[in-house]
Amino acid sequence: MTDPLSRIKPDVRRLRPYSLRFEAAKIKLNQNENPWDTPAAIKQETFRRLENRLWSRYPEFVPTSLIERLAKFSGWTETGTLVGNGSNELIQAILMATVGEGKKVLICEPTFTLYRQVATMLGAEVITVRLSSQLSYDVPSMLAKIEEAQPDVTIICSPNNPTGCSISSTDLAAILRASEGLVALDEAYIEFSSQIAIDLLRDHSNLVVLRTFSKALAMAALRVGYLLTSPELAAEISKALLPYNLNCFSQTAAEVAIDMYQDQLKPRVEAILKERDRLFDEISSIPGLEPVPTTANFIVVRSSIDPRKVFDELLRVGILIRDVSGYPMLRNFFRVSVGSPPENDLLIESLRNILATRDI
Amino acid sequence: MTDPLSRIKPDVRRLRPYSLRFEAAKIKLNQNENPWDTPAAIKQETFRRLENRLWSRYPEFVPTSLIERLAKFSGWTETGTLVGNGSNELIQAILMATVGEGKKVLICEPTFTLYRQVATMLGAEVITVRLSSQLSYDVPSMLAKIEEAQPDVTIICSPNNPTGCSISSTDLAAILRASEGLVALDEAYIEFSSQIAIDLLRDHSNLVVLRTFSKALAMAALRVGYLLTSPELAAEISKALLPYNLNCFSQTAAEVAIDMYQDQLKPRVEAILKERDRLFDEISSIPGLEPVPTTANFIVVRSSIDPRKVFDELLRVGILIRDVSGYPMLRNFFRVSVGSPPENDLLIESLRNILATRDI
Repeated sequence: MTDPLSRIKPDVRRLRPYSLRFEAAKIKLNQNENPWDTPAAIKQETFRRLENRLWSRYPEFVPTSLIERLAKFSGWTETGTLVGNGSNELIQAILMATVGEGKKVLICEPTFTLYRQVATMLGAEVITVRLSSQLSYDVPSMLAKIEEAQPDVTIICSPNNPTGCSISSTDLAAILRASEGLVALDEAYIEFSSQIAIDLLRDHSNLVVLRTFSKALAMAALRVGYLLTSPELAAEISKALLPYNLNCFSQTAAEVAIDMYQDQLKPRVEAILKERDRLFDEISSIPGLEPVPTTANFIVVRSSIDPRKVFDELLRVGILIRDVSGYPMLRNFFRVSVGSPPENDLLIESLRNILATRDI
Repeated sequence: MTDPLSRIKPDVRRLRPYSLRFEAAKIKLNQNENPWDTPAAIKQETFRRLENRLWSRYPEFVPTSLIERLAKFSGWTETGTLVGNGSNELIQAILMATVGEGKKVLICEPTFTLYRQVATMLGAEVITVRLSSQLSYDVPSMLAKIEEAQPDVTIICSPNNPTGCSISSTDLAAILRASEGLVALDEAYIEFSSQIAIDLLRDHSNLVVLRTFSKALAMAALRVGYLLTSPELAAEISKALLPYNLNCFSQTAAEVAIDMYQDQLKPRVEAILKERDRLFDEISSIPGLEPVPTTANFIVVRSSIDPRKVFDELLRVGILIRDVSGYPMLRNFFRVSVGSPPENDLLIESLRNILATRDI
């Protein structure tokens, strides 16, 4: 009998699965989540709206009530808005609709690892441009690579995970003009930034914007993302989405989060931004650590001691961070999410201790 | 500027999106859902277990507690079990891991339309074998086609949507032996049938079994499916699954449904089976209608009058069924899900009226 594994595509067999080392810790600063749980008012209203919803019945074919809200919330059109089971599913749908063997996907490095994973799975060639030595977007190199390779899809994460840099609207417009292919802009952390690309959607029909409920909107457990683009592209990308991709519970919770964003969530985003600035300043003042300026709710930090050791020693005091030293350009870096004030206090104190000990 | 639509793969542009005509109706017999909602005991226990779950935190990387239960529930191994956002996502993952341009996917027709949709999206060639004229699996033709074409993946829906036929274990074993490629067996309706393929998993490492919580388990709104195969294949297919594909709410509800299946859900499955037999007999007794024997919770019915008219007239009395007359071989057929006893009573009475009127 033929080995069934031989039917798996060679690119897939070579792929290392995306994974995350699991560690139990009382303070979790490794996934850029919102340090505060979904507000009780949002939870209660979600349960109230779901009281008479049958679990046995499929969700609506198109989640109209959520799409209406998202369009209004983001200032875009309903026909240009799609929702997904997390923005990951929408990234996958964009790539499924556009690439396969012989197609090219451009990403910057270091960035969110899923882009490469999905593009490779689909048989596309992944081409890369490194960030600048300051870990910001190297726009001249990006433009040169786009003109040279004309990738079918260029994916830009802005603010960028794991470095925190953003691309300016002016630079993005230049990239959109230079690109014959699609440009997917992953704005997972946009609520923490001032660079918002929505205005560019009107002028550039090759732009696709991705957003998520997992970060500022405090709903990582529920898996909701959305996509904004031209109605024509939305119609094609939606063919790559599975029917009923969003469960009714998450759909309703997302609707409530939008309805209550200003009162319930925005103040917490502002608190995270204040904490981010404080955390940045405090880390800057620790000898041996050098935080990189960020536009997101996390900070990548250059460390004079092995990031793996920082990770291990923080874990011993109950703080889980992300060791990003395996990423290109980040051999000497770790990443911390901005936590709540007491979480950040403990992080700062622990980092001071770890770095002080190492100095002896 | 280049038209961004030109970056969409030609196969995708040609694809008609999967869609379902939406109709409001008080009796919904069009999607083969469980006519009874998730039992209150399951809902309450789900809420209880979720009380302290933070919505702001990502789900576990691997949903271990659900996988353990599913393995026990189905008599298979944990390492050979994967979960998905509905079984649709798992079908997609199997195809993403195995096919692209130049690859072949074999399906029988008529069957669930999503298989063709996803295979086409990925650039694979879809080859088909028709059901027999009695709308059962034509195993000799399937074997001949497999030997001739050696498809990379063969997808068999058993019980088959929308016809209700099953494939026997003996026939399936023959197909597994003849296939150098993978055989994906979609058992979405298995709880209503006596043909269960689980024993074949031990002897055939090219078998992948798909199951769902959307039918017998009464959780279509929550989007949960699972997959059973060899640990080696599971490891490869899981690379095509997005991280955190199952939200925490659906995961917990699925765990509770498994824990309470015997007491809370199985009696309802038995009630549906009794109703199915009654509905079959009643429809058989209506002149002009000829139900096809079924092993699922739905019945496809040959109609002497236009299925579209049956659909419209039933809708006028508040009953929504599925017009399947657009499927290959089913020009004169409609499909009804087995409802609750009063729903079936009204369906039967209405069908009698519609057919009687037409006779005059």
